[in-house]
Amino acid sequence: MKVAVIGGGAIGLLMASMLTEMGSNVTLYTRTEEQANAIMKRGVKCHYFGKNERYYPLHARKFPDLKEEADLVVICVKQHQLSSVLAFLKQSAMVRHAIPLFLQNGMGHLSSIEQLPQSVVMAGVVEHGALRISETDVQQTGKGALRLFFVKGNNQDVQRYLQHPILDAVFSENARHTMEEKLLANAVINPLTALFEVENGALLHNESLRTLALMLFEEARSVLNRSDREKDLAYLWNICEGTKRNRSSMLKDIENGTPTEIEAISGYLIKQAEAQNLPVPYTSFVYHAIKAKELVIP
Amino acid sequence: MKVAVIGGGAIGLLMASMLTEMGSNVTLYTRTEEQANAIMKRGVKCHYFGKNERYYPLHARKFPDLKEEADLVVICVKQHQLSSVLAFLKQSAMVRHAIPLFLQNGMGHLSSIEQLPQSVVMAGVVEHGALRISETDVQQTGKGALRLFFVKGNNQDVQRYLQHPILDAVFSENARHTMEEKLLANAVINPLTALFEVENGALLHNESLRTLALMLFEEARSVLNRSDREKDLAYLWNICEGTKRNRSSMLKDIENGTPTEIEAISGYLIKQAEAQNLPVPYTSFVYHAIKAKELVIP
Repeated sequence: MKVAVIGGGAIGLLMASMLTEMGSNVTLYTRTEEQANAIMKRGVKCHYFGKNERYYPLHARKFPDLKEEADLVVICVKQHQLSSVLAFLKQSAMVRHAIPLFLQNGMGHLSSIEQLPQSVVMAGVVEHGALRISETDVQQTGKGALRLFFVKGNNQDVQRYLQHPILDAVFSENARHTMEEKLLANAVINPLTALFEVENGALLHNESLRTLALMLFEEARSVLNRSDREKDLAYLWNICEGTKRNRSSMLKDIENGTPTEIEAISGYLIKQAEAQNLPVPYTSFVYHAIKAKELVIP
Repeated sequence: MKVAVIGGGAIGLLMASMLTEMGSNVTLYTRTEEQANAIMKRGVKCHYFGKNERYYPLHARKFPDLKEEADLVVICVKQHQLSSVLAFLKQSAMVRHAIPLFLQNGMGHLSSIEQLPQSVVMAGVVEHGALRISETDVQQTGKGALRLFFVKGNNQDVQRYLQHPILDAVFSENARHTMEEKLLANAVINPLTALFEVENGALLHNESLRTLALMLFEEARSVLNRSDREKDLAYLWNICEGTKRNRSSMLKDIENGTPTEIEAISGYLIKQAEAQNLPVPYTSFVYHAIKAKELVIP
């Protein structure tokens, strides 16, 4: 299968590595010429969680410089960088018959990707921990799953292809539920770890952070109209436990001075709450708090 | 006038310096033997805002080791350290006829100090900026006023004595209003600057911090049942502007790993709000957030 991976961040590098390990013909599309050149020269090095590192000579190009047709396009850019990728998927003949797979946090993009001209569109959430070490080096910091679903259409070949032990892909009919579960966890873990500059495990061990986590959790649950509170809560604490030594992506963004995904996570919940006339003061507080941190010069 | 200043923190050292400068006979009572010895040996050095530093040879003792009667007892310990001072004022014959002057943030102590056996009791808020450099060195980081009032009784001599240009003391009939105004500003500035680890001026210049400040301001106003919104708001922004390069006492406490005054400030507001059945989610959030920061090992 010819695979195009778009995005040279932690998730893009990890997906490109895993798909190559599975024997696919992968090209990685990056935002900068520099990163594409570095990958063409040195390849990509992936340090798998609990295993040795592996090295992959890989094709790389600056997005959107696609030179040949792709069967599968794995989109690993952040939510706020999606617009140029969506425009590309609508216009380019090279990906007219491809299956796009979107791997973003948040749910803001679900309504727009349904409108794409491609007959099959997939989305999913990545539960693997990933840390970008350099333009060409990535580390899998935790072993999770890849929760996937068909946003529209269906394709058994690609489903069978992705159900590979390396990816640990789980297909779920209950798509929205899967994303909501992740969004719920993200709406708690990301802003708190970024605000307090702590590893994910701190939410379990610091009593007051746990109180704040529960305050955010209850708000997000009520907005998303979730039924099984205990299951959602167990999922949240499990992620905190499983990734306790990790620094969340939002914390890393704050530390690196790059924009966070606060709009796609808490911002999305606030919009949904407004539509339902639900007050979400704690979510609003962390929304503005992260925006404040983005502006505080480190 | 024989003055006992209790508390060797920034405000205690500043008050002891200013009162000595005014020609009073001051003894400073400290929590530790070490600080008392250091002051007996080296005196106290105060760097007045915009002026040269001055050096005062000063008597110092470990509290509550009072050796002679005092006319005025200036209590500069923090709200959560008040209980031993209150017990002392109730029991010691040395201060039976003294006038206690309480200079704490927050308003939690007002009801208990009214019960003291002394016939005249004063309280006030310090708007001078102060930074403790060492056990014996203090810096006045901003020139403010000392807003004072009689909690019970009245004494013209002490009022005349304190109305000295060095202290910049202002007596106000409207006592509760004065403390509320300060509490309101503290409830906004202290938790936000401590949470985001910024100087006070950041609340003016960072758009999102300003939004958070207004969220906390409106809650505190409604709990305290304040009428003149524009005046309170002007007071808040004036403090932020006048102390823009200062790190708030709460931020310093977090940085030093000492307990903050969050109970006396946001905790007091939350209790008052509960009694009135008013929701104060933003104040609750920062209350738990500061408690979380107190637990995060630096």
